Amino acid sequence: MRRSVKTGMEPGTPVYVGIQRHEAVRIDAMVYDCETCESYVDVPLERLEGLKSHEGVLWLNVIGIHDVDLVRSVGEIFGIHPLTIEDIVNTSQRPKGEDYPGYLFCVMNMLTYDDVARELDLEHLSIVAGRTYVISFQEKEGDVFDAVRSRLSQGKSRLRQMGADHCLYALMDAIIDGYFLAIEKIGDGIESCEDDVFEHSDSVDLAVIHQYKREVIAFRKSVWPLREAISFLEKSDTPIISGDTRMYLRDLYDHTIQVIDMLEGYRDILGGIHDTYLSLSSNRMNEIMKVLTIIATVFIPMTFVAGVYGMNFEEMPELHWRYGYGICWVVMIAIGVSLVVYFRRKRWI
Amino acid sequence: MRRSVKTGMEPGTPVYVGIQRHEAVRIDAMVYDCETCESYVDVPLERLEGLKSHEGVLWLNVIGIHDVDLVRSVGEIFGIHPLTIEDIVNTSQRPKGEDYPGYLFCVMNMLTYDDVARELDLEHLSIVAGRTYVISFQEKEGDVFDAVRSRLSQGKSRLRQMGADHCLYALMDAIIDGYFLAIEKIGDGIESCEDDVFEHSDSVDLAVIHQYKREVIAFRKSVWPLREAISFLEKSDTPIISGDTRMYLRDLYDHTIQVIDMLEGYRDILGGIHDTYLSLSSNRMNEIMKVLTIIATVFIPMTFVAGVYGMNFEEMPELHWRYGYGICWVVMIAIGVSLVVYFRRKRWI
Amino acid sequence: MRRSVKTGMEPGTPVYVGIQRHEAVRIDAMVYDCETCESYVDVPLERLEGLKSHEGVLWLNVIGIHDVDLVRSVGEIFGIHPLTIEDIVNTSQRPKGEDYPGYLFCVMNMLTYDDVARELDLEHLSIVAGRTYVISFQEKEGDVFDAVRSRLSQGKSRLRQMGADHCLYALMDAIIDGYFLAIEKIGDGIESCEDDVFEHSDSVDLAVIHQYKREVIAFRKSVWPLREAISFLEKSDTPIISGDTRMYLRDLYDHTIQVIDMLEGYRDILGGIHDTYLSLSSNRMNEIMKVLTIIATVFIPMTFVAGVYGMNFEEMPELHWRYGYGICWVVMIAIGVSLVVYFRRKRWI
Amino acid sequence: MRRSVKTGMEPGTPVYVGIQRHEAVRIDAMVYDCETCESYVDVPLERLEGLKSHEGVLWLNVIGIHDVDLVRSVGEIFGIHPLTIEDIVNTSQRPKGEDYPGYLFCVMNMLTYDDVARELDLEHLSIVAGRTYVISFQEKEGDVFDAVRSRLSQGKSRLRQMGADHCLYALMDAIIDGYFLAIEKIGDGIESCEDDVFEHSDSVDLAVIHQYKREVIAFRKSVWPLREAISFLEKSDTPIISGDTRMYLRDLYDHTIQVIDMLEGYRDILGGIHDTYLSLSSNRMNEIMKVLTIIATVFIPMTFVAGVYGMNFEEMPELHWRYGYGICWVVMIAIGVSLVVYFRRKRWI
Amino acid sequence: MRRSVKTGMEPGTPVYVGIQRHEAVRIDAMVYDCETCESYVDVPLERLEGLKSHEGVLWLNVIGIHDVDLVRSVGEIFGIHPLTIEDIVNTSQRPKGEDYPGYLFCVMNMLTYDDVARELDLEHLSIVAGRTYVISFQEKEGDVFDAVRSRLSQGKSRLRQMGADHCLYALMDAIIDGYFLAIEKIGDGIESCEDDVFEHSDSVDLAVIHQYKREVIAFRKSVWPLREAISFLEKSDTPIISGDTRMYLRDLYDHTIQVIDMLEGYRDILGGIHDTYLSLSSNRMNEIMKVLTIIATVFIPMTFVAGVYGMNFEEMPELHWRYGYGICWVVMIAIGVSLVVYFRRKRWI
Repeated sequence: MRRSVKTGMEPGTPVYVGIQRHEAVRIDAMVYDCETCESYVDVPLERLEGLKSHEGVLWLNVIGIHDVDLVRSVGEIFGIHPLTIEDIVNTSQRPKGEDYPGYLFCVMNMLTYDDVARELDLEHLSIVAGRTYVISFQEKEGDVFDAVRSRLSQGKSRLRQMGADHCLYALMDAIIDGYFLAIEKIGDGIESCEDDVFEHSDSVDLAVIHQYKREVIAFRKSVWPLREAISFLEKSDTPIISGDTRMYLRDLYDHTIQVIDMLEGYRDILGGIHDTYLSLSSNRMNEIMKVLTIIATVFIPMTFVAGVYGMNFEEMPELHWRYGYGICWVVMIAIGVSLVVYFRRKRWI
Repeated sequence: MRRSVKTGMEPGTPVYVGIQRHEAVRIDAMVYDCETCESYVDVPLERLEGLKSHEGVLWLNVIGIHDVDLVRSVGEIFGIHPLTIEDIVNTSQRPKGEDYPGYLFCVMNMLTYDDVARELDLEHLSIVAGRTYVISFQEKEGDVFDAVRSRLSQGKSRLRQMGADHCLYALMDAIIDGYFLAIEKIGDGIESCEDDVFEHSDSVDLAVIHQYKREVIAFRKSVWPLREAISFLEKSDTPIISGDTRMYLRDLYDHTIQVIDMLEGYRDILGGIHDTYLSLSSNRMNEIMKVLTIIATVFIPMTFVAGVYGMNFEEMPELHWRYGYGICWVVMIAIGVSLVVYFRRKRWI
Repeated sequence: MRRSVKTGMEPGTPVYVGIQRHEAVRIDAMVYDCETCESYVDVPLERLEGLKSHEGVLWLNVIGIHDVDLVRSVGEIFGIHPLTIEDIVNTSQRPKGEDYPGYLFCVMNMLTYDDVARELDLEHLSIVAGRTYVISFQEKEGDVFDAVRSRLSQGKSRLRQMGADHCLYALMDAIIDGYFLAIEKIGDGIESCEDDVFEHSDSVDLAVIHQYKREVIAFRKSVWPLREAISFLEKSDTPIISGDTRMYLRDLYDHTIQVIDMLEGYRDILGGIHDTYLSLSSNRMNEIMKVLTIIATVFIPMTFVAGVYGMNFEEMPELHWRYGYGICWVVMIAIGVSLVVYFRRKRWI
Repeated sequence: MRRSVKTGMEPGTPVYVGIQRHEAVRIDAMVYDCETCESYVDVPLERLEGLKSHEGVLWLNVIGIHDVDLVRSVGEIFGIHPLTIEDIVNTSQRPKGEDYPGYLFCVMNMLTYDDVARELDLEHLSIVAGRTYVISFQEKEGDVFDAVRSRLSQGKSRLRQMGADHCLYALMDAIIDGYFLAIEKIGDGIESCEDDVFEHSDSVDLAVIHQYKREVIAFRKSVWPLREAISFLEKSDTPIISGDTRMYLRDLYDHTIQVIDMLEGYRDILGGIHDTYLSLSSNRMNEIMKVLTIIATVFIPMTFVAGVYGMNFEEMPELHWRYGYGICWVVMIAIGVSLVVYFRRKRWI
Repeated sequence: MRRSVKTGMEPGTPVYVGIQRHEAVRIDAMVYDCETCESYVDVPLERLEGLKSHEGVLWLNVIGIHDVDLVRSVGEIFGIHPLTIEDIVNTSQRPKGEDYPGYLFCVMNMLTYDDVARELDLEHLSIVAGRTYVISFQEKEGDVFDAVRSRLSQGKSRLRQMGADHCLYALMDAIIDGYFLAIEKIGDGIESCEDDVFEHSDSVDLAVIHQYKREVIAFRKSVWPLREAISFLEKSDTPIISGDTRMYLRDLYDHTIQVIDMLEGYRDILGGIHDTYLSLSSNRMNEIMKVLTIIATVFIPMTFVAGVYGMNFEEMPELHWRYGYGICWVVMIAIGVSLVVYFRRKRWI
């Protein structure tokens, strides 16, 4: 569904805007503190109240946001503002960071590069972080959080020692680590494209270059606003984020800048490839045309001479000369050779 | 009429600048509070004073601004500054938000995409919002406010519970929702254009690409200043806007940014289409010229040979050879074949 | 004269830099307050002192700035700083607004579009505004202030009720109204250019497009710094400008932005026209070359066949076949037709 | 010598970086106050102490900075920081303004246009301005300060009445006046280039356009940072610069902006010339190719017909027709004429 | 190894990201104050504690960061934050300056131009500067610090008199001096490229231009963020940096700006070379095609005439004219000459 289905609805009405899905929506949960860590799969709605009042940090992962009612129910349990709910289910929402009373809200795109389809896969992901809980909402099964999960289940990891704000940070960090993976894959493609151009420009497909350009633009559209969002979280004076986590967010900001730098670099390279491709293919074309035209040009005057002595005038003295034919050949060859010499002197061939 | 008709007039003189219209101007009104909602069509000027002093929120919708006297009369009743009146009837006014004593003033463009004429339709719309009233001025019959009207007539909607500032917000939100509709239609056209380019570049019309470019530019010209206007309303310290509505305005600002993002994206894509179109059509042209030139080049030396033996010299020994004619064919074919082989080796064909 | 004539002179030395003129310089004056308005033509220098000490507001209009001594004399009477005098007579001075002790100083360009010569006419105009007087300096006879004069002579106009700051505003407003007139004329030309390109690109003259580009650039160079100048006047804390006039200056600022918007729009369109012109004319050229080359290519192999049977070998069995000639025609036509079919299949024709 | 010779040296080590020179270095001095003005040529180092303690303002002009030891000695006498000395002798230093304890430091480029070599001549110039002295360091004999010198020797000039800060200003003003001279010469060249392009594009040399582009870029590189430097001097709270001189510096800043404006204008024009040159020369080329190809295309089918009736088949009935030859001519001319008509209808010729 | 190997690791986990190396890691140290300077090579880890508590300034140079454990151990001894350690071993980290409790952290790229491979060599370098120590971490043997070392071993150098902050500055200065060397080598290449283009455009290789473009971009990517980093160090209120060193840092900032200026200049020049190369090579191509086409065009009508009189019609009166053959030559030559004259008049040849 597209953004326009929302036209005319009351602002704050949550409407799922994205690919139609029919899978059941699932809620996973992890509750942890320094000492224990419990993990739950497919938690029913009714148990959420209990988990919420639990000691320690709660990380709720909602998989599937097409079930708007469920998202709204979760939102009501944790006191989330309707405008936030609206943004959570609106998959076309651009990345942003916002400060609501009682919680922080962060929208990101989870980017993975699909090796088979050779295209960038973009998944809308929202994170709500309160004092003691973090709720992540993702579109579908499959994410980049496995490393976070395994760190949580290990007793000694720093993550376990710290609060919900560090969990928020860890999730964001995992997503941005995923960006590096995706960008490196795109970068490999672009660089092999570049080599192709300089080696044998025929095999390069303009559609492929155009496709990479669009991917870099799409990537940039996800990362650029994220930069502001992270900077907002780092600099906001919310008590939810502790001083130590702020330092980690600064590091994250740094990574985002690095991603943007890489993207800019690839954009420059793609622009260069396109220009060079055009120059090279026009050069090759010119080269061909030149050679062909020279062949034609050399033979046309010679053919003219042959045409002259093919005329049927009664009085054509040359035809009766003894060495007429030989002389004619000499003349023709002389014309051809002198043209070739002339072209060579002009450095045309 | 054009902007220049105002030359020489006293500043603050309201002059209608736009397409000449002759329809009668109409004023519709809705008066509502939590409990009741009354709707009036074609309210005569004399009744406005009464409606103004009514309890609850008053939304006045003036349809048609070419009757400058009527607009001025309305303005006088509500104490609107002459400069505001001037901007209301000046259809070439760019979007802006301003803070006048006693009311807020906001100029927007209502954008709809006309499917039949395949062009963007732009209507000048001004909103004046006081403490207890909102007045919208539109150019002609037909708007995007039907959803607002139906929400107003339903008792339970949030809109009914809140003040004039929320009504202002609701109207602006309806207009920006309309932007998404318009932009999606333009986007569909652009994307089908893109597919055309890569599939069979002949059928693409440069005039169409140029037309889309102009529409995206026109769209951008409407949305870009609107961004500042909304930001101004959100951040101004006017008592007319309540804290809760401010949060909704922040959301609206977000939508505007999203529209701008989409427009930038389409601009990039259009640029890419244009470049690719040029590259592809020049590639195809080159391909054609190359093949044609090769055919010519192969036959020209062969024709020369034929020309030579068409000469009428008395002494041409080859003509009397037994297999002269056969050898001649062999020579000609050899020349042709070796040229083809040479071209193929050079990877020209 | 050019700017460089000033090289080596004491800074603050007023030097007229512009087209050499010989007309006599004239000073016109209007003195007005709510009740009376007197108008003087060609006021001699000696009377200025008297006018200055007059009650009410004095508007002095100096026509002709090539008489540097006269300008300096006027300046001395009103206590104008030498640097201001220098800027007044320096016609290459860019627009700016400055705050000197006792007066405001504003440089603008008066732009009119000369329909006959089809070029933008730029006149340097400076305004000095004190508490009770406004002095405008223009290069030559003829200006856009007639409407201001007629409003001044009408007793009821707002202008008459207000101080010198409003007179300054009225003059600036008149000039910017003139911008709209000029820009609309340029815009008409550009749009007819655009239509020409898409209809029959032959008749478009690149020099015309280049000329429009230069005019838009020149226009922009006049308006862009003016924007800052007006903003400076609006925001400066000088007591010369009253709060009410500030609101009008904000409106003026708005108009300037609108002019800039229109100019940017025309610049985009001109860029688009240039690109499209190039694309279209290259398309048309390619089309022509293609058709011509195809004709040549079809006939060259046929001519080769004809050449073969024009050879004079003794033994050419085909020549003696009964239907040799007919078969030859069939072969030639077959070659031609099959080439045409092949080209058509490749969608080249 | 190049900047890299400094690699590995202690920071603050003064190293002359520029063209190797062997002329003797000279110090000229002027000491003045309202009443007297003394001028000295080739002042020996030992006398500097005396001049420094003199009443009035001292302007020291050091001609030649390749004698690093001398510059350092001067610096030590006036208490100049080693980093300043380093910048004085580093000819590749970009323009800047800095505030050191006890003096202001300003680096500029003196630009003159060499009419003979037709290139921009750039000379590194540094000015150190203390409370009672100004020291200018220039690379070689010959400068733009003659007007300053003559004003100093005239008793009534404003310069004589004022302090060292005004002398600093006067020197900077003289340099910027020189910019106008240089830029007008470049501008003349560019404009004659522009006329050439539109009149007869053959005579335009791309290398010349490229050369102008480089000069405009080099010019810009000198002026752009100067703008910041002057703004820094104007706004710094140093007691060395008096309020009155600040007003003059504002005027200077204005001139710098004007230079930048002119440069931007020329850059736009050069870009336009390049584009137009390419368009026009491609248009002309296309025009030529079209005419030539049309001639070829018209004759090729005619030649084919002639070729057919040059064949030697025994049975060619047309050869024996009475009016065969005439008919053949008619056919050939008909083919040629109809092709020409067709091309004309298509508006190709 | 690539950045993506870090995916899923705990943030702050140091992972070496760069070319795999196997050399042993070495730590060199210099301890100095005004009076003494001791130099140690290959200091074992255990001795670091002792050196740290030494009087005077300690400069530790760690050569090789692929031994992550060693780097971590050094970090622990000096109390360096895990995030800093992570950045030290992450060779893809972009330049930055950061303020950690107790020390300053600075990442730079050491750039050298490899004359043999003709490419820019980029080495990741991090500096940690505390109150009494400076630790630099470099990737491999070989650096630009030899001049710093020799200055340290000389008793009288300014460096010896000052604290750790000046040592930090000296290292950064050495690196930026290295930039000038590298940039001048690139610049030489670019300028010889430029000369090639204007002299004989054939020998220019687009791949070389592309390669220079990439190097300038890579260079810029290293210097641009460095500018911010130095500005951060200069402006931060850390007590580690003394007022005097701040003045030197300002000078360093200046150098960085100069490097950026040079890079921008080269970028402009490279753009210009590319454009000019394309224009010139297209001009030359056009020139060739024109001459060739003219030759063909002149001979085609002449050949047609010859073809006509090669026809075998029985009745061809011209064939029997006495001077038929001569007249035919005259006609053919007349056609050829008149075409040449026509072309010359049109100024095509």
